[in-house]
Amino acid sequence: MPDKRWRHVLGVVETAVELADRFGGDRDKAWLAALLHDYTKAWPTDKMETIIREQHLPQELLEHDKELWHAHVGAWVVRQEHGIDDEEVLDAIRYHTSGRERMTLLDKIVCLADYMEPGRDFPGVNKIRERAQHNLDEALLAGFDSTIQFLVEKGKTIFPLTVLARNDLLRIIRENKSI
Amino acid sequence: MPDKRWRHVLGVVETAVELADRFGGDRDKAWLAALLHDYTKAWPTDKMETIIREQHLPQELLEHDKELWHAHVGAWVVRQEHGIDDEEVLDAIRYHTSGRERMTLLDKIVCLADYMEPGRDFPGVNKIRERAQHNLDEALLAGFDSTIQFLVEKGKTIFPLTVLARNDLLRIIRENKSI
Repeated sequence: MPDKRWRHVLGVVETAVELADRFGGDRDKAWLAALLHDYTKAWPTDKMETIIREQHLPQELLEHDKELWHAHVGAWVVRQEHGIDDEEVLDAIRYHTSGRERMTLLDKIVCLADYMEPGRDFPGVNKIRERAQHNLDEALLAGFDSTIQFLVEKGKTIFPLTVLARNDLLRIIRENKSI
Repeated sequence: MPDKRWRHVLGVVETAVELADRFGGDRDKAWLAALLHDYTKAWPTDKMETIIREQHLPQELLEHDKELWHAHVGAWVVRQEHGIDDEEVLDAIRYHTSGRERMTLLDKIVCLADYMEPGRDFPGVNKIRERAQHNLDEALLAGFDSTIQFLVEKGKTIFPLTVLARNDLLRIIRENKSI
């Protein structure tokens, strides 16, 4: 893993543990999922494609941005190579880029930490950090908003799960159930 | 139907027929679907909600913006009250607001005409009109982009079918199969 990527991973670890403490999550699982979340990020795309095809990961991934692949491939690899069998940790790795419907607290912590770790710099990142001081769901919503706006501006496809995840967050916030 | 809405309908009719002529669509079906596309737009929402519940229209509509309801309810009502039984025309009415996967040429014509009829004025409408001079799919993509950006800015849910429709258009354009 290149140095820059490794610094990002350490930033996500630090942020995920902070968020777990702030919002009542499991700090050990947050630490582990964050440490492993980008495990295959630097892999060649053809190696990831082979795993997606041969191990029957969701084939629709192949129709979308390659940025999404490493999350599902990473979850598969850390189970195979490192014997990680905690489904909650594996899910948090698997969905850290796209989000999903009915995200767990751990899913949200890792996904949000990935958006806002100290090394991140993109339009809207400070809004995400400010919201994360008080509300995990509203901060993550701002993260998904920035992803969707970026994809629209760049003329890229939007992964449907991200929209379902965002719709879920809006419902949770509307019903005053956000944390 | 209020005067302003009726002027909009006549604008959509005129534009839909123009687009049908330009892109090889059926001008009679375009005329009919455009004329009827907003048939229940001015109905009270509780009347639309009753039809969605009792006639088993897609229940997920109820979780999204009410702006989406009249399209499905309208298709149901014009079939019941006016005996319209052309499935292509009914689909173009049903999906004129959200779009859908694998849109037909008629779906696209009515949906695009609704975005760009002469009375429309919103950020991005001129880009849509310019593209519609040459490419139906690229113009419609610009329409969906504007809808998604609007929904993100307003903190509203995004109807998943709109994202699937947009992803389809991007694929068609990428494969050089756009019209």
